[in-house]
Amino acid sequence: MSDHRAETIKASFQAQSMMETLGACLTHVSEGIVEIQAPILPGSQQQHGFAHAGLTFAIGDSAAGYAALSVMPPDHEVLTSEMKIHLLAPGRGEVLIARGQVIKPGRRLVIVQADVYARTDAKEVHVAMLTGTMVPLAPK
Amino acid sequence: MSDHRAETIKASFQAQSMMETLGACLTHVSEGIVEIQAPILPGSQQQHGFAHAGLTFAIGDSAAGYAALSVMPPDHEVLTSEMKIHLLAPGRGEVLIARGQVIKPGRRLVIVQADVYARTDAKEVHVAMLTGTMVPLAPK
Amino acid sequence: MSDHRAETIKASFQAQSMMETLGACLTHVSEGIVEIQAPILPGSQQQHGFAHAGLTFAIGDSAAGYAALSVMPPDHEVLTSEMKIHLLAPGRGEVLIARGQVIKPGRRLVIVQADVYARTDAKEVHVAMLTGTMVPLAPK
Amino acid sequence: MSDHRAETIKASFQAQSMMETLGACLTHVSEGIVEIQAPILPGSQQQHGFAHAGLTFAIGDSAAGYAALSVMPPDHEVLTSEMKIHLLAPGRGEVLIARGQVIKPGRRLVIVQADVYARTDAKEVHVAMLTGTMVPLAPK
Repeated sequence: MSDHRAETIKASFQAQSMMETLGACLTHVSEGIVEIQAPILPGSQQQHGFAHAGLTFAIGDSAAGYAALSVMPPDHEVLTSEMKIHLLAPGRGEVLIARGQVIKPGRRLVIVQADVYARTDAKEVHVAMLTGTMVPLAPK
Repeated sequence: MSDHRAETIKASFQAQSMMETLGACLTHVSEGIVEIQAPILPGSQQQHGFAHAGLTFAIGDSAAGYAALSVMPPDHEVLTSEMKIHLLAPGRGEVLIARGQVIKPGRRLVIVQADVYARTDAKEVHVAMLTGTMVPLAPK
Repeated sequence: MSDHRAETIKASFQAQSMMETLGACLTHVSEGIVEIQAPILPGSQQQHGFAHAGLTFAIGDSAAGYAALSVMPPDHEVLTSEMKIHLLAPGRGEVLIARGQVIKPGRRLVIVQADVYARTDAKEVHVAMLTGTMVPLAPK
Repeated sequence: MSDHRAETIKASFQAQSMMETLGACLTHVSEGIVEIQAPILPGSQQQHGFAHAGLTFAIGDSAAGYAALSVMPPDHEVLTSEMKIHLLAPGRGEVLIARGQVIKPGRRLVIVQADVYARTDAKEVHVAMLTGTMVPLAPK
């Protein structure tokens, strides 16, 4: 992918204040694949001290959206139209890792998937699977 | 619903640090209906300054989950197994309001819905619809 | 809605051979609301003699799709992009009734819902809820 | 997997009259993986002569359900609680092939996926992806 595209994605990510609130980082961007990591901060937890589903969703949705954006023509944007998340295991550990990918690109819709893992030491557990629909927006 | 049940829900809500991070409040609890409100804080936004989908999801999912909990026997808990969110309009305004309800109660599964509205002045816009599956957990 | 639009919907429905295989009938068409009924035929059942989920899905998806079509400009078509079905109760009885409606119209996407009921004598039981995304196609 | 389990799955499949109506065959059963094929019969089509989404759903849902059943203890059954289908491309060709797999086994819920392909000559096109929740039922 072009450097321009990667820069666009980084700039969009940095403009999302929620990502900063959650301590999330963009850790990989390539054509059709984007990875976001976020620590399970003291302020991102549910009632048992595990990662809140809102955190898991937020980084999974963003990883999937930027994966879609990585295959769009320059200066486009994408919006999430719908997203389903299956929560497979408690988000227990130090950090969540969301990996987004494109299932089916398209001019009108992009179908995406993201998988989220919780890492403790070197071990990763699959905690969530997301599938959804992104809508490309051409530059005005 | 019993006061005990309402107290259990309030205590669980307060134990979710993410709700505090997002500034969310539990504004209504009755049998099968729960409402949560959250301001669109400077730190809860996406790249255009609207409510982040992570915020919309977090309060919608929690409202739906507590609606399920409100129809469970005492001392149960519920876990989200899966949740689909349709994002219908930008989360523009001062506050988001999530209203959760029970579509189909059950001993093994509870099917739930939540609708999220963005309010500016006195006007509410429907910004998201969620449907999902909650799993009741009996006390140990 | 115009007679032309209603005729377009009827013609499209009749061109779906699957609807004939399932014995399905278009029983109501108005702006944003479509109803389809189908008997639970001997050949439409699952292993316990109830309505097969494929039948429930087929008429729910079609009712939702034609509800979307009923709010489109003339000569458009719609395609289902994605659809989630919650199966709430066994499809037990003589006939299934699917009622589709539009949740959020749009030029690029139409968000729809359908609810399916099983009727025995005069009693209706809510057996499924579907929510999904329809894509309008302009005439070529 | 045991022969007993495979026989149970075959018997359940044969008891679904809808599978016979659709001409569907169980073409592979192993632990956690089930394949079902169905021709695109003249009576299984939508208005453009492609496979009806009801056919795609019916065999995808069944393949996913039997994949779940293949990892259950003997004499259990499974019910679909919810299923989301993304329709990725028209179901064009001679036959649809649904491959179901288990994403996350469990005593209370089994999370499943199915992918459906349309085959013409030797070429397979990915036409649908399903993800859903199966509920195990213990023998009475």
